[in-house]
Amino acid sequence: MVYFDSASSAPLHPVARQALVASLDEGWADPARLYREGRRARLLLDAAREAAAEAVGCRPDELVFTPSGTRAVHSGVAGALAGRRRTGRHLVVSAVEHSSVLHAAETHRAAGGESDEVAVDRAGRVDAPAYAAALRPDTALACLQSANHEVGTEQPVAEVARVCAGAGVPLLVDAAQSLPWGRVEGDWSLLTASAHKWGGPPGAGLLVVRKGVRFAAQGPADERESGRAPGFENIPVIVAAAASLRAVQQEAAEERERLRGLVDRIRRRVPELVPDVEVVGDPVRRLPHLVTFSCLYVDGETLLHELDRAGFSVSSGSSCTSSTLTPSHVLKAMGVLSEGNVRVSLPSGTREEDVERFLAVLPEAVRGVREQLGAPSGGPVAVAAAPAAEAAAAEPEAEPRADADTGADAEPEAGGAEPGAGADARGDETPALTVDSLGKRCPVPVIELAKVIGDIGIGEIVAVLSDDEAARLDFPAWCAMRDQEYVGERPADRGTAYLVRRRS
Amino acid sequence: MVYFDSASSAPLHPVARQALVASLDEGWADPARLYREGRRARLLLDAAREAAAEAVGCRPDELVFTPSGTRAVHSGVAGALAGRRRTGRHLVVSAVEHSSVLHAAETHRAAGGESDEVAVDRAGRVDAPAYAAALRPDTALACLQSANHEVGTEQPVAEVARVCAGAGVPLLVDAAQSLPWGRVEGDWSLLTASAHKWGGPPGAGLLVVRKGVRFAAQGPADERESGRAPGFENIPVIVAAAASLRAVQQEAAEERERLRGLVDRIRRRVPELVPDVEVVGDPVRRLPHLVTFSCLYVDGETLLHELDRAGFSVSSGSSCTSSTLTPSHVLKAMGVLSEGNVRVSLPSGTREEDVERFLAVLPEAVRGVREQLGAPSGGPVAVAAAPAAEAAAAEPEAEPRADADTGADAEPEAGGAEPGAGADARGDETPALTVDSLGKRCPVPVIELAKVIGDIGIGEIVAVLSDDEAARLDFPAWCAMRDQEYVGERPADRGTAYLVRRRS
Repeated sequence: MVYFDSASSAPLHPVARQALVASLDEGWADPARLYREGRRARLLLDAAREAAAEAVGCRPDELVFTPSGTRAVHSGVAGALAGRRRTGRHLVVSAVEHSSVLHAAETHRAAGGESDEVAVDRAGRVDAPAYAAALRPDTALACLQSANHEVGTEQPVAEVARVCAGAGVPLLVDAAQSLPWGRVEGDWSLLTASAHKWGGPPGAGLLVVRKGVRFAAQGPADERESGRAPGFENIPVIVAAAASLRAVQQEAAEERERLRGLVDRIRRRVPELVPDVEVVGDPVRRLPHLVTFSCLYVDGETLLHELDRAGFSVSSGSSCTSSTLTPSHVLKAMGVLSEGNVRVSLPSGTREEDVERFLAVLPEAVRGVREQLGAPSGGPVAVAAAPAAEAAAAEPEAEPRADADTGADAEPEAGGAEPGAGADARGDETPALTVDSLGKRCPVPVIELAKVIGDIGIGEIVAVLSDDEAARLDFPAWCAMRDQEYVGERPADRGTAYLVRRRS
Repeated sequence: MVYFDSASSAPLHPVARQALVASLDEGWADPARLYREGRRARLLLDAAREAAAEAVGCRPDELVFTPSGTRAVHSGVAGALAGRRRTGRHLVVSAVEHSSVLHAAETHRAAGGESDEVAVDRAGRVDAPAYAAALRPDTALACLQSANHEVGTEQPVAEVARVCAGAGVPLLVDAAQSLPWGRVEGDWSLLTASAHKWGGPPGAGLLVVRKGVRFAAQGPADERESGRAPGFENIPVIVAAAASLRAVQQEAAEERERLRGLVDRIRRRVPELVPDVEVVGDPVRRLPHLVTFSCLYVDGETLLHELDRAGFSVSSGSSCTSSTLTPSHVLKAMGVLSEGNVRVSLPSGTREEDVERFLAVLPEAVRGVREQLGAPSGGPVAVAAAPAAEAAAAEPEAEPRADADTGADAEPEAGGAEPGAGADARGDETPALTVDSLGKRCPVPVIELAKVIGDIGIGEIVAVLSDDEAARLDFPAWCAMRDQEYVGERPADRGTAYLVRRRS
């Protein structure tokens, strides 16, 4: 089995294993006690804190260990908001934060606070002026990930930190994905991370609160970890987390370039090997080990199963792979195709031959899934009914699109009607054809659209009725990939009507 | 080093170590993922849940793993209160709960809720009628530990659960101390526990919510652990926790009687070997492995250091061993002596010879501390200046006192004036002598009282000025042990005046 999902959880690093086993015999005692066993436990805990602080680039007394990265985020957001309660209750986050941040924002709103999401461009990147525009006099906290966990795009943390510092607003950086690769640059105020993302054991997160940042821990009081992380310290896991973070960061210089080369290869070759693929995320300013692409007319869950059967473990942001049947909020915010989505994140030590083998099995896996679904065959489908040669017509379009949009203006809304086109078309939106895809899940509605688009005349409109959450994202993405016009969505008696005008 | 503080944290059980190491290789992956590594992690997690549920006596889907016992309590209390928000916001807890429960109650009050503490008797035990009296139509939740963590007294959980069920109020049982010895009997609604208390690794707690109990998890949403414990699951630790709980419960039948015998020996012999000792907690309805006693005229922290130097690790509820310089809330609620307090909790496998050696070194350790403090020598001090033979005069008083009060009416207030005596004396409270102990810490004020009591006439009053938090508890306790009359406390220009009438 080849594991290509280190962004979910990295395999245990050998140093983590050694440190964990070595500290089991002394790490069980209460570090708050003054007897010998307690003092030994305290020494282990103090040493781990120093090592982790060195790796993060902070003072040891600014760093506490939490039971997970999620808990670090929850405690960090709640404590920072409460610490600046007198300033206001406004929170700013990016639209592509990890769910732990977005859930903390939801809780804040449920308690009467406010929050705003800063949009990203099609590469998944925020820009500093957008943060500057979102800050208000009553903004208590801003949050920004150092790099995105689904598409790998690095965020301009140092610039956003400058903007926030200028406005006197603390910035919390979720560094879960990037910390193994090195310190987070810039003048951030709070930082969170998660050990199992870097090959540490599960059960440890980091919460760093810079001296001078107002912070009021929420929830029941507890003396441990400076009052910021209640509960008995999990010392063997903490020791292993700190030791492996140092080890991983030391290995990063070499591994970064090697994995970046392998990911570059995947980014380049997948669109060559598989028709109708969109590689997403910033092609340059990105994590070295992570690449995400979406395959048109593919059911993400089935593709994951096929790849699992072929010996590869990857993950997906497709709606069919989520318990709520909604596509990843990250892909949604980027406005990119969510169907047939695959995230490949290479663990440290990934072998070149395993990447090659992945590239060898992927095309057949995608082809098999498309065949099962009765999808139109690949190639740029001007007229869907016309068969197209697969390899020759491989889309060179997806990658340059991400390139071109990088750094451009953010496109905040996915799925809204294009204003110009919508306005022009408004007088003549009567569909020449209506397809009922109600009750059908991604990617079937898009497949049904592709199958009929050739049946209407150029300039005419097809309406697809769908109640699938992914449709709102995937119809516009399909139109962009296929150079058809996405007119917009309209309420229907049942579900929503998605209108597409045949352009070619 | 002999470790006698398993009630703080138990040494790692060999089964825990084996299970932890064995599951490191498969327990790092995300159990929510569908690929092979995820499925394996899920199998480990499911098996651990089944094993833990079997040990607790609940359904697997009623049990979630939390990062610690403290977090289990915090989440359990908050979730149960929120689940019954419409019924009301009144919470009932015992006065001797673990600090995690009391802190959760504080947080509830800070958020506008109400809570009441049910008093305990001098043995640290609540009774069911007192719980019945505390329940109100707007009571949302009641909490009761299965056994006390500081003095070992077992609580009448089944009776209190009946009372609560009768009133339609869910009962949360903190079973942290008793679960290693077996299931908690009775019709409780929620249960919490902590793995490192039974020899599991730190980093895992249990929260059980019976089907049908209204529960609304608080804090940011998270899909893991039925939405009741956010953050990535700590699977190797969870596996080790579950495996060791089963192992420990299987060993309990034998170990219970053996440790009970050793504790009986300590309970009997300490008052024989050391003058002026009060053994506290219920002598019969108690945890098998735990005994607590307090030594008059002894500084708890110094005694712990002496015992540590002699090779024994124990803990203390004395004020001088707490960061806040307040005596343990448990000893306070019981109204027993807090100075020179020692808790001995024997880990599984404790050897008889180590207990004997402890009994051999304890008297000298106590004598040494008393000598350093210039304490009056032991014996029933009718006239404190008169030296008394130590061994001959060993106090047989302390143990029977605990016996006699067991099951009797709860004495809710420690340190209040005895109403009758106070009333009688009120007309004639002018002290014959005033001792200034301001700025001096436990046990010095009591030592100064003992030194001068012989200087006043029988029927006369001595006033001791003190600003030590422990004085409120220790003056009445000293009077009870010495058969002197505690008149009460009066506000003074600085600190508080504690009035004692010489009776013999």
